[in-house]
Amino acid sequence: MISDKMKKLVENNSVIREMFEEGKRLKSIYGEENVYDFSLGNPSVPAPKAIKEQIINMVKNEESCFLHGYMSNSGYEDVREKIANSINKKFYTNFNSSNIVMTVGAASGLNIVLKSILNPKDEVITIAPYFSEYNNYIENYDGGVKVVKSNEGDFLPDLDLLESSINEKTKAVLINTPNNPTGVIYSQEIIEKITDIMNRKQKEYNHEIYLISDEPYRELAYDNIEVPYVTKYYKNTFVVYSYSKSLSIPGERIGYVVIPNEMENSSEMIEAVTIANRIIGCVNAPSLMQRVVAECLDEKVDLESYEKNRNLLYKIVTESGLECVKPQGAFYLFVKSPIEDDKEFCKIAKKYNLLFVPASSFAYPGYVRIAYCVSYDMIKHSKDAFEKLGQEFINN
Amino acid sequence: MISDKMKKLVENNSVIREMFEEGKRLKSIYGEENVYDFSLGNPSVPAPKAIKEQIINMVKNEESCFLHGYMSNSGYEDVREKIANSINKKFYTNFNSSNIVMTVGAASGLNIVLKSILNPKDEVITIAPYFSEYNNYIENYDGGVKVVKSNEGDFLPDLDLLESSINEKTKAVLINTPNNPTGVIYSQEIIEKITDIMNRKQKEYNHEIYLISDEPYRELAYDNIEVPYVTKYYKNTFVVYSYSKSLSIPGERIGYVVIPNEMENSSEMIEAVTIANRIIGCVNAPSLMQRVVAECLDEKVDLESYEKNRNLLYKIVTESGLECVKPQGAFYLFVKSPIEDDKEFCKIAKKYNLLFVPASSFAYPGYVRIAYCVSYDMIKHSKDAFEKLGQEFINN
Repeated sequence: MISDKMKKLVENNSVIREMFEEGKRLKSIYGEENVYDFSLGNPSVPAPKAIKEQIINMVKNEESCFLHGYMSNSGYEDVREKIANSINKKFYTNFNSSNIVMTVGAASGLNIVLKSILNPKDEVITIAPYFSEYNNYIENYDGGVKVVKSNEGDFLPDLDLLESSINEKTKAVLINTPNNPTGVIYSQEIIEKITDIMNRKQKEYNHEIYLISDEPYRELAYDNIEVPYVTKYYKNTFVVYSYSKSLSIPGERIGYVVIPNEMENSSEMIEAVTIANRIIGCVNAPSLMQRVVAECLDEKVDLESYEKNRNLLYKIVTESGLECVKPQGAFYLFVKSPIEDDKEFCKIAKKYNLLFVPASSFAYPGYVRIAYCVSYDMIKHSKDAFEKLGQEFINN
Repeated sequence: MISDKMKKLVENNSVIREMFEEGKRLKSIYGEENVYDFSLGNPSVPAPKAIKEQIINMVKNEESCFLHGYMSNSGYEDVREKIANSINKKFYTNFNSSNIVMTVGAASGLNIVLKSILNPKDEVITIAPYFSEYNNYIENYDGGVKVVKSNEGDFLPDLDLLESSINEKTKAVLINTPNNPTGVIYSQEIIEKITDIMNRKQKEYNHEIYLISDEPYRELAYDNIEVPYVTKYYKNTFVVYSYSKSLSIPGERIGYVVIPNEMENSSEMIEAVTIANRIIGCVNAPSLMQRVVAECLDEKVDLESYEKNRNLLYKIVTESGLECVKPQGAFYLFVKSPIEDDKEFCKIAKKYNLLFVPASSFAYPGYVRIAYCVSYDMIKHSKDAFEKLGQEFINN
């Protein structure tokens, strides 16, 4: 008597569970330190010290009913004001507290935005490769997913395909930059090309087509590359942000949605998103963490650790003969499978105790995702395994 | 371009906003201390000291990536184990960690349960008066709400009406004891009468009819009255719990769902609820708070404060000539409106700066809800206002 929608998900879930069980099995045979698990996107760098200090500071100095109590469903007003000001300072935007809705992480942020805009059968365009949970979030509201492939090589959206994929039913285009799983960052030029198309199509169909920018990896950009602030290029933009990666607190579930005044009917939309936040059951973002992140807006995890990891793993992977574009952001390498079947390649890698995620799960078969949010030592020790894996294909 | 479902909610929301604005307006004219706001269900008693101590203890002693990191979508296993053991000790049940799914409060708990069981047009029975958000939670999954009235006087469900309301489409009966807004607690006898009917109807229609027990007020029971543990009386029961009221931490969004092994296909159902928790965007219950509540399972807010409030307010209200059943739990008085129109009565009360919620919002017109989760002093000072309000109706 499980609902039909959930029944399907329970059935499919066994694949993910099997992968997880397989990892556990390998670790129990070979020892934790001899299994190179690159399959998870779980931050490995500790939260900045300020998080700990602010938690202690808050519980010591704030009154319990205030600190742990209910507040507006969109979050504490002073917290939202501080966040708005911080965005304004960094990106020359013009937000105030009312443009910010605090959320239970980016995943909830995406859900409440989609709930606020989707009628059944409306379509959302995703750019492959993409985080497969997007499918579930969209289907939660009976929306349809329309996949636009990015170009092999640079992993930027195929713009012609994007243009021809937008139709009467298109309600939103969902982008994710820096990108999971490729690590690619969209430049201002690319953003402008995407939004040019969307502006044209909005006129053609005479209704809003929203740009949803999922930005949990915004602060994880290397080599001083700038991540453009998308609301500056397109009025009908939602920015969905999370502190999970920037402050290494993914378990705490804290983020926000930005709804600019420039959006069509923005005050109604802000209200819709706030109500959605309430009725999907979040009610509000966790209160203590709201106050903590508001005092840590200039803090960031130790990015150098991730960068060191990136550089070493990129070196090891490419020297082993595998093909890969050097990522500019996030904490993933997107590596070409030397054989067509990426799942088969993952199976072969497992012989060397290397665990990857086949990019079939990101709607981009023929590649694998290798996460480097792991210890530097694990990457160092995985060198031999990568060499052996590479040789298997050079010899063929 | 707001979705049709949300558009309606945005329109209706203006009523709630008006009430809130009206309260703010009165406070600005007469001063905060001269407005008796009994409209909100926001705990007024601070969290037990142990909460503060455990938060500090956790951030001082636990490793950041563990304390603030991702874990299983159902929550930390050791936390779930501790909670299961604590329930077993108190209620002689037989749960283990796998029967517990940690949630972002009870509101999320209800949402993920409903998402797991409802197909479009399935019906859920609610017992009026009830928390009106249930309507939104059920409609999130395109379910229908079927209201069964409770009897005036004792506010226990009309059992004949319950029996005749269950039909082919009934998927669940949703109860809430101790009850918001009446404060009534269902005895073992009542639970058994309800579940007798449900067992018969399950056989008749040859499918599961779930009992969903929403229990955020479980620990708020006075006069040593026992709140029966519902899984002991019916196999297909979900218990939805929250620490919001028992530990006075509603803003932190932490609770859990219990799914007993005795439930039909329980392991599949546990998986469905866990996946629903992930895909509605919660991902997991806030990590630090999971660990904190697990160390505070024998803690409870200062119940005596609420009881003192209850006794004084009950005395003031009844002495003013208004009619009211003395509540056994939660922190609300459910008072009969001396005129048929409860909304009009609330308007008249407002003349004396008394703010109530009309029970029309709880699907039970003719009554008002008066929350006593406020300061004792406010109740004391409201005596004159209640007297004047009462006199207005005695004189008529």
